[in-house]
Amino acid sequence: MPEAVETMDGWYCLHDLRKIDWTKWKKASEQERKEAVDELQKMLREWEEVSEARDGSHAFYSIMGQKADIILMILRPTMKELEEIELRFNKSKFAEFTTPSYSYVSVVELSKYMSKENDNPEDNPGVRARLKPKLPQWDHICFYPMDKRREGNDNWYMLPMDERRQLMYEHSLTGRKYAGEIKQIITGSMGFDDWEWSVTLFAKDVLQLKKIVYEMRFDVVSARYGEFGPFYVGNILKTDEIPAYLAV
Amino acid sequence: MPEAVETMDGWYCLHDLRKIDWTKWKKASEQERKEAVDELQKMLREWEEVSEARDGSHAFYSIMGQKADIILMILRPTMKELEEIELRFNKSKFAEFTTPSYSYVSVVELSKYMSKENDNPEDNPGVRARLKPKLPQWDHICFYPMDKRREGNDNWYMLPMDERRQLMYEHSLTGRKYAGEIKQIITGSMGFDDWEWSVTLFAKDVLQLKKIVYEMRFDVVSARYGEFGPFYVGNILKTDEIPAYLAV
Amino acid sequence: MPEAVETMDGWYCLHDLRKIDWTKWKKASEQERKEAVDELQKMLREWEEVSEARDGSHAFYSIMGQKADIILMILRPTMKELEEIELRFNKSKFAEFTTPSYSYVSVVELSKYMSKENDNPEDNPGVRARLKPKLPQWDHICFYPMDKRREGNDNWYMLPMDERRQLMYEHSLTGRKYAGEIKQIITGSMGFDDWEWSVTLFAKDVLQLKKIVYEMRFDVVSARYGEFGPFYVGNILKTDEIPAYLAV
Amino acid sequence: MPEAVETMDGWYCLHDLRKIDWTKWKKASEQERKEAVDELQKMLREWEEVSEARDGSHAFYSIMGQKADIILMILRPTMKELEEIELRFNKSKFAEFTTPSYSYVSVVELSKYMSKENDNPEDNPGVRARLKPKLPQWDHICFYPMDKRREGNDNWYMLPMDERRQLMYEHSLTGRKYAGEIKQIITGSMGFDDWEWSVTLFAKDVLQLKKIVYEMRFDVVSARYGEFGPFYVGNILKTDEIPAYLAV
Amino acid sequence: MPEAVETMDGWYCLHDLRKIDWTKWKKASEQERKEAVDELQKMLREWEEVSEARDGSHAFYSIMGQKADIILMILRPTMKELEEIELRFNKSKFAEFTTPSYSYVSVVELSKYMSKENDNPEDNPGVRARLKPKLPQWDHICFYPMDKRREGNDNWYMLPMDERRQLMYEHSLTGRKYAGEIKQIITGSMGFDDWEWSVTLFAKDVLQLKKIVYEMRFDVVSARYGEFGPFYVGNILKTDEIPAYLAV
Repeated sequence: MPEAVETMDGWYCLHDLRKIDWTKWKKASEQERKEAVDELQKMLREWEEVSEARDGSHAFYSIMGQKADIILMILRPTMKELEEIELRFNKSKFAEFTTPSYSYVSVVELSKYMSKENDNPEDNPGVRARLKPKLPQWDHICFYPMDKRREGNDNWYMLPMDERRQLMYEHSLTGRKYAGEIKQIITGSMGFDDWEWSVTLFAKDVLQLKKIVYEMRFDVVSARYGEFGPFYVGNILKTDEIPAYLAV
Repeated sequence: MPEAVETMDGWYCLHDLRKIDWTKWKKASEQERKEAVDELQKMLREWEEVSEARDGSHAFYSIMGQKADIILMILRPTMKELEEIELRFNKSKFAEFTTPSYSYVSVVELSKYMSKENDNPEDNPGVRARLKPKLPQWDHICFYPMDKRREGNDNWYMLPMDERRQLMYEHSLTGRKYAGEIKQIITGSMGFDDWEWSVTLFAKDVLQLKKIVYEMRFDVVSARYGEFGPFYVGNILKTDEIPAYLAV
Repeated sequence: MPEAVETMDGWYCLHDLRKIDWTKWKKASEQERKEAVDELQKMLREWEEVSEARDGSHAFYSIMGQKADIILMILRPTMKELEEIELRFNKSKFAEFTTPSYSYVSVVELSKYMSKENDNPEDNPGVRARLKPKLPQWDHICFYPMDKRREGNDNWYMLPMDERRQLMYEHSLTGRKYAGEIKQIITGSMGFDDWEWSVTLFAKDVLQLKKIVYEMRFDVVSARYGEFGPFYVGNILKTDEIPAYLAV
Repeated sequence: MPEAVETMDGWYCLHDLRKIDWTKWKKASEQERKEAVDELQKMLREWEEVSEARDGSHAFYSIMGQKADIILMILRPTMKELEEIELRFNKSKFAEFTTPSYSYVSVVELSKYMSKENDNPEDNPGVRARLKPKLPQWDHICFYPMDKRREGNDNWYMLPMDERRQLMYEHSLTGRKYAGEIKQIITGSMGFDDWEWSVTLFAKDVLQLKKIVYEMRFDVVSARYGEFGPFYVGNILKTDEIPAYLAV
Repeated sequence: MPEAVETMDGWYCLHDLRKIDWTKWKKASEQERKEAVDELQKMLREWEEVSEARDGSHAFYSIMGQKADIILMILRPTMKELEEIELRFNKSKFAEFTTPSYSYVSVVELSKYMSKENDNPEDNPGVRARLKPKLPQWDHICFYPMDKRREGNDNWYMLPMDERRQLMYEHSLTGRKYAGEIKQIITGSMGFDDWEWSVTLFAKDVLQLKKIVYEMRFDVVSARYGEFGPFYVGNILKTDEIPAYLAV
């Protein structure tokens, strides 16, 4: 029986994507719209303080195309805190002008495929930091969920540990080429949501998002064993820019 | 022709997941909201009495993410009683502020894969208790439906009984590691709903939900033969906490 | 080229499943609700007379879970009569409080797999009766559509007639064990609806529905060649019980 | 590389299926309903004149079950004319009481699989007529889209031309048995809609629709290479019968 | 490990498909409709100026069938400019009368499969022009997204570069036959949207759209390795024709 590699788990993570009902938004009074924007900015600024205190982190981006208009990605030490944030957002004035389009529940995860035996990566401060990451304020985001395939001869979970380790190693080499260009957050979601992992990529240059996903598609771990869900791409929406973004 | 293992069946089970229409809820009068909350709490307290009398059991949790806001899981001796509860819930004031998001109809099931020959597990009081389980009030829930795969060379229903028994045995060893951490309810739903089984896991520590699902994914019974539906994860919502949860 | 077995075809069949909009129903006036219930009962009683005259048959059940609230299954000698019934139901007061959830168009079908050569089963009065069945008033219903698989090595339509006959024979032995417990109506729907057949099972004891579907899943004809659609399970809703069921 | 068989293409084709919103229809004033019916009949009568002049053809049927209430199938020499008809229908009073349920864009197509070499079937007046067909006013319609499979060893597009020709020939023999009972219109839709072809069958006896689809399912071209979309079956709705059909 | 071919990337691309809510449109006042049309024409004329200045390009077509009524395809040097256009369109008066039906986010892409070694195609002015194309004003459009297959023995990403190059070369020969008849824009969308590429074809004669897609289906690269999403076909809608198209 193939052996499961151990994982290290960090902050819990919620991706919340919504569409804006522009017709309803335009029909609201100036006063209502101001109230909604103010409350949204207030929430974001409070979360920025949480982030400053290193008690969590978040990202707020607009999303391209009709699948969603905005994404909130939020990291917190407990699932309960995520629920409170979700609940507060649901009850906010702004939420009245949105419809849910996709969400994802997961936890920041690092695998131990690359760890040396007799080595405890959790002792490593760099590793510990990666489990509680400060999300970068880079211009672009890409988010997608994924599975490892279990089909006929292409069954990831039936491969021996060594083969999986080798494939993950090759994959990491592709990733390394994009160091400084792409920051990647992997979260695990088995038992939490419909796919097995989520990937969130941040980039300064949006084209690098396409380049890394394209190049990785040829890694055997993706080519034979990757199943990909919907992809969302977007541009940063800074708290101060929200009034302009929503101005009608 | 492969032989079907016998099953033992206990209480009937309904999972009912709903989204809350927060905009409508906020627009309702204080009086209407109070009425809805009072009636919901009254129902839950009546069901708690049923549970005390060991005539059924239930669980009420909030759900993370946009797929649902709340889950009611309810166990009763007959399908007719489940219908009455569903009907009462549908007619309640609170239901007016919800939209259905997912439901599941099934019956608590134990297989006899592990039973010794000439042994009748139904004579065992522990087994009888597991068929009419008292759901724990642990902090977290995970619910998902599943099938056994029937595809090409990966066809569970074409395996000889002994091979299925061996695979189920290995699977049970993984489960045992989580004793005390995870409580698992398996229900059968062939003829009742779209998947073959449902799994409901309760945990004190939400991370254990991810760990058990992850580790089991490498069991051959899951790796080669498991097909999984949507996953829902949530936090306990005690009857007394409902007013705060719904406060706007 | 594999040969198609001949079929015998009887009454046309419509399954019509609907959800009830409880909020709208509660908002209607007492008078409107009474009107809707009276008209619904009147239709059902007229159809009961048709059934008495052996010019058709029907079943009316509540459905468990959120997928539907009620199912009307109706059998008539012509497709045109089914259309008239569907049209009348669509135009009825009660229909205003429902939303469609699933429907199925088919015709009662018996295959000649089991027929002896030189034997015309249509001469058999028992067979003729089964083509125009009187649906039983048993407590529970189970309805699902299905296909025979055509995938890689598991292609039903590429099997020689003798192999198909043998597999159907074994399958019929499983069915026979449930004689008296389960009454089964098979309808064919190629050219009429999205799956190839529908199965409707009636049971006095709801658990027998799960048991037969489970046991048959191990028949090779199901294990290798069956593809199953959504499953609906429900409880009988007698015409006299409708006012209580709908009381708010 | 397998060679594509040539096709002959005729009139452009739009299938437009809609559901009727009966509640809204009943709430409309007598005057509004009359206006809607009059305009619908007027359009149909104008199209009947086009059909008389052999500048196009159309069919109007009611559809069984909840997937749709009516189907309009319309043939015209250019895509632009189809657009004008679609646009006129969308802007009509009657359309306000309908919701779209399915549509299909294609062009009448005949393949040259059966053509003898050095023979130009387009010179044949019978062939030319079949490319601009007058749809029969038979009692029943069956419509479905389909693909040729491209999966593993069952890949139609990788078969040598001769094997495809042989399989199409056998298939045509099955079809010929239904001459006089079934009239079949094949349209091609690659580049135009989501499936590769659509099939529309007309029958005097609705049971023949099931019989031909069932018998053809055993032809190797269907058994191994056919992928089928949704099936719609219906009854003719003559222009004069529309007021009765819509009477409330 | 198979090697990824390099790509050249040009302008960013948004396809935005919408349905028109004709009932709402008819209910609007003459004044509101005029305002909506004027603003839409104004936007299109501004974009025509951008196109004249070679700072972008766009296409506006009506779409056949119920899947959408109109498509806007727009090309710009940056993702941020696309967002601004999408936002402006979402906030426009006309958008109030539409519902989103499909969108696609991508970037104009050319692969280097055909490039000679030691040759930098980006130095070629023809290549550079193709990365920033002026969309033709031809009468018809066809748009669809697609993937390269990764299934069992049909896994594009596991093929050696030389085999992929050979298959792409054969494919390009099919394309060349349609030079002058079809203009094709390929965009890459890994990391940006749910499929890997989008294809947009422009034609003077709508039948050529079907012919090229049909003929290419027999190319091994499509037959074995192509997976296709929804297809949309439409007719040009010139800025001046919009008032007539929308007249009610």
